[in-house]
Amino acid sequence: MTMYGAIEAGGTKMVCAVGDETGKIIESTVIPTETPALTMPQIIEWFKKFDIKALGLACFGPIDLHEESETYGYITSTPKLEWENFNILGCLKEALNVPVGFDTDVNGAILGEMAYGSAKGLTDAVYITIGTGIGGGVLSNGKLLHGMLHPEIGHMFIPRHPKDDFTGLCPYHGSCFEGLASGPSIESRWGAPGAELSDREEVWDLEAYYIAEAITAVTMVLSPQRFILGGGVMKQEQLFPMIRRYVGQMIAGYLRTKELEDLNSFIVPSSLQGNQGILGALKLAIDAAE
Amino acid sequence: MTMYGAIEAGGTKMVCAVGDETGKIIESTVIPTETPALTMPQIIEWFKKFDIKALGLACFGPIDLHEESETYGYITSTPKLEWENFNILGCLKEALNVPVGFDTDVNGAILGEMAYGSAKGLTDAVYITIGTGIGGGVLSNGKLLHGMLHPEIGHMFIPRHPKDDFTGLCPYHGSCFEGLASGPSIESRWGAPGAELSDREEVWDLEAYYIAEAITAVTMVLSPQRFILGGGVMKQEQLFPMIRRYVGQMIAGYLRTKELEDLNSFIVPSSLQGNQGILGALKLAIDAAE
Repeated sequence: MTMYGAIEAGGTKMVCAVGDETGKIIESTVIPTETPALTMPQIIEWFKKFDIKALGLACFGPIDLHEESETYGYITSTPKLEWENFNILGCLKEALNVPVGFDTDVNGAILGEMAYGSAKGLTDAVYITIGTGIGGGVLSNGKLLHGMLHPEIGHMFIPRHPKDDFTGLCPYHGSCFEGLASGPSIESRWGAPGAELSDREEVWDLEAYYIAEAITAVTMVLSPQRFILGGGVMKQEQLFPMIRRYVGQMIAGYLRTKELEDLNSFIVPSSLQGNQGILGALKLAIDAAE
Repeated sequence: MTMYGAIEAGGTKMVCAVGDETGKIIESTVIPTETPALTMPQIIEWFKKFDIKALGLACFGPIDLHEESETYGYITSTPKLEWENFNILGCLKEALNVPVGFDTDVNGAILGEMAYGSAKGLTDAVYITIGTGIGGGVLSNGKLLHGMLHPEIGHMFIPRHPKDDFTGLCPYHGSCFEGLASGPSIESRWGAPGAELSDREEVWDLEAYYIAEAITAVTMVLSPQRFILGGGVMKQEQLFPMIRRYVGQMIAGYLRTKELEDLNSFIVPSSLQGNQGILGALKLAIDAAE
């Protein structure tokens, strides 16, 4: 059996897996994201146990995705300073000596959804993760979107709720979408982690409002056929109906499409039980081997 | 010589032209946009003077671009009520009996820029027109972007400037980008049309701020290689350096790309002297004939 390696490289943990070309995960492990010097050797050692044909790397960022660039494969301006300007792709290629497919963590997730989940058959779809940070992966005109760099949906400015005076936590932008609505922002605004606030309706009403503003803006810009929401904050499943209601109010009948007539199908949770990222990384490996 | 017809259908005027496959306009005329019953016969009569092989229609909207839809070719939810639910594509096809390429006015403009102007050689670029309304045409992954419908960049919500308390003119959304920053919004906020306010620095500082907010948001979502700005408001050329400065401040060093290092080339005026829309319509015709 041909085996492929997959890494979902996140700011707190590195999910590593091997799987086959049907998208079946055979074995996996989790390695904490500390520093490149500590973390990378553990990843490499783990993959050396397997005979993989190619590797897929879905990586936190911003990262450089331009093959012609001198810093292709580098993590660039991340707030995780030990990883800034680290050539993660080069490090893995050299150590494992296989083709490596490389994209953002969130493009990995939308690719996983496209190959195996809720974005199957779609040409234009968006995956948004709302957790420690906020990011978006985009399928546009049938392909993962890079453009100049890659989408950074979490760093879009959105209007503040009139009753919210929280400063915002983004070190670059203060009150961008991530600054207002990430997991740490919820904790800082309300004085407790989101997981302990499940029954506080005002918490989730405000959170749903901000997520809906972002979805509405992205709808006006990208016109996707579906949004798939994941990440730690979205485990608060009560958010979904609230987000859908706000999105309907915000679009206000201006766009008339069959997708928007059925908001339950337009805005959905991931169908891959948290495996969308690692499955997308596996698909990156399968595509890289071709 | 093979001739192609082109219509740039706008809310106030219909620009009609015939041209050749090199993008040369041979003859053109302008017909005011009144009602379908008054306007369409004049358009049809004009084109019947020529032997055109195909027609391109770049049309104000929202419009239905899905060929499999029952209302394909219709103008849908426009605030111009006489044109709402009008089958503009069907009307022209039936009268002129040639293939008709059909897209939004602003997708026409970005197509014109891609074929003959400032977006040549790019895969990801955005044209924004700021005039009576605000709209955006998008080239994403090398193709015009439709997705679920088509982009409606003017109707994205952007944060209000802390010193601006203008309500916003959008009948659907109040203070969306168009509601805050269109030509009529400038006139309503300041009490005179923009053309009479050229020397009022505070007018253009606020306008540049809003345009920069929109460009920054679209950059975070679409990651384009270039923005091309057109429309009546952008005739105030003093806006360009102000917009670039604000965009630099708003991105705040978070994205590091060669495009963003050179904002003079990232945010540019149209290079086609106002002909980007009609040239895009001509390109739609040329593509439809193939």
